[in-house]
Amino acid sequence: MNRAELFSQIQQKSSFLCVGLDPDLEKIPANLRSEPDPIFSFCKAIIEETADFAVAYKPNIAFFEALGAKGWDTLAKVAEIMPKDVFTIADAKRGDIGNTSKLYAKAFFESMDFDSVTVAPYMGKDSVTPFLEFENKWVILLALTSNIGSLDFQLIEDKTGKPLYQSVLEKSQEWGSPENLMYVVGATRGELIGEVRKSAPEHFFLVPGVGAQGGSLAEVAKYGMNSTCGLLVNSSRGIIYASGEKDFAKVARNEAQKLQMEMKDLLEKYS
Amino acid sequence: MNRAELFSQIQQKSSFLCVGLDPDLEKIPANLRSEPDPIFSFCKAIIEETADFAVAYKPNIAFFEALGAKGWDTLAKVAEIMPKDVFTIADAKRGDIGNTSKLYAKAFFESMDFDSVTVAPYMGKDSVTPFLEFENKWVILLALTSNIGSLDFQLIEDKTGKPLYQSVLEKSQEWGSPENLMYVVGATRGELIGEVRKSAPEHFFLVPGVGAQGGSLAEVAKYGMNSTCGLLVNSSRGIIYASGEKDFAKVARNEAQKLQMEMKDLLEKYS
Repeated sequence: MNRAELFSQIQQKSSFLCVGLDPDLEKIPANLRSEPDPIFSFCKAIIEETADFAVAYKPNIAFFEALGAKGWDTLAKVAEIMPKDVFTIADAKRGDIGNTSKLYAKAFFESMDFDSVTVAPYMGKDSVTPFLEFENKWVILLALTSNIGSLDFQLIEDKTGKPLYQSVLEKSQEWGSPENLMYVVGATRGELIGEVRKSAPEHFFLVPGVGAQGGSLAEVAKYGMNSTCGLLVNSSRGIIYASGEKDFAKVARNEAQKLQMEMKDLLEKYS
Repeated sequence: MNRAELFSQIQQKSSFLCVGLDPDLEKIPANLRSEPDPIFSFCKAIIEETADFAVAYKPNIAFFEALGAKGWDTLAKVAEIMPKDVFTIADAKRGDIGNTSKLYAKAFFESMDFDSVTVAPYMGKDSVTPFLEFENKWVILLALTSNIGSLDFQLIEDKTGKPLYQSVLEKSQEWGSPENLMYVVGATRGELIGEVRKSAPEHFFLVPGVGAQGGSLAEVAKYGMNSTCGLLVNSSRGIIYASGEKDFAKVARNEAQKLQMEMKDLLEKYS
């Protein structure tokens, strides 16, 4: 999916919601556990019920990988049933030397046809560019994450006062464009999203950390939105585990709709 | 495997060789391609023939992941046949927020019983510590990598002139000890290995980049060795693809032995 198509979806659905799929066997409703593939059944139900309100889905690869080969089978099945009109994100945080990154890219872009992969920047250019060589595929590069550990290195300032995450933003814009490169920008600090927006006016940001991780959707929109929205705001637990009972998918739908309605207002206000 | 056991293996084998398993269907000998699981047969033969000279094995997870669920099955089988006296490294370069890192740790430490996982530091403390909570398991944290992209961010100096990789070394020593934390330190710059050794005198370093990537083993030992060796030097392609014919495993054995003999001399000289 290219940028124009993504923006078109955002306009059609009046939403910039990304639903994070973190399927945990210990948290999914008990009635699913007798299914042949409970994780698949869970994801399928969530996707079907929330697709009216979400423009993107983000399976967290660790949750599948923890189940070994069976988990990879499930992941491939989940990737297959994604609606054609949504943007899909393999949240894998990969990154390695060139020939190895190329294999990770093949795994997610060729074997499974995801639109994008989250990538860690520490190893630099040749760890990122192999992902950028696939047509209509995207890198979502970690810039400023929403976890507490983001304070350890991402904010270290260089001699000119530039924090590391800014160096990541600047350098990586030499490798990709707003057409194939997004950034992970945590929602826990509204004003920092504004700083990132100054450095990357046109790029999409994937924003985790709204809800369970503490960020405010209104702040994110205020500081982060641009003329083509430029935001995908993720919610995982707040949607998929809103109910742990048989009604989980319907409740997830309601939660997704609530966020979408808030997003509709914000799109009208800022976009 | 704990640090004392690893050093004991190094002494017994007079070797600090790690064999990197990067099994590529396009590069393995043609005669293996008719096997039910050519990648497994390849890895098994390499391990059997090189185990006299290697103290560690490092499967590169991307090469397995690129094959989907089948690749994960193969990886689990390879992990199972590892000799009990070697140190095993899942070269996965993982790292995510706490609850997600915990799942990656479970995948590699519980489902598959690897001794260690390579981890990327960009997301900070809570992305690393979940891996350190497993007894007798190790994090091998990226500090200074051997690829060209390492120049992009790892050498950025802060206001006091300290490069990022040094901040990673210092900060992470608050999270783990030489008993459960190693560092990836590229071999392409001998003098830099000396710098890293000053900051982490007791930790083991996993050193890629000897051979195909251009580093010199003698330089690595000169600058990097400590009183308990403190080095695992990796060779992948130089061993596993030394021959593309039926004799590949025997030729791999010879290449591993050549390195081990050089290592024996270096251990006597510096350790």
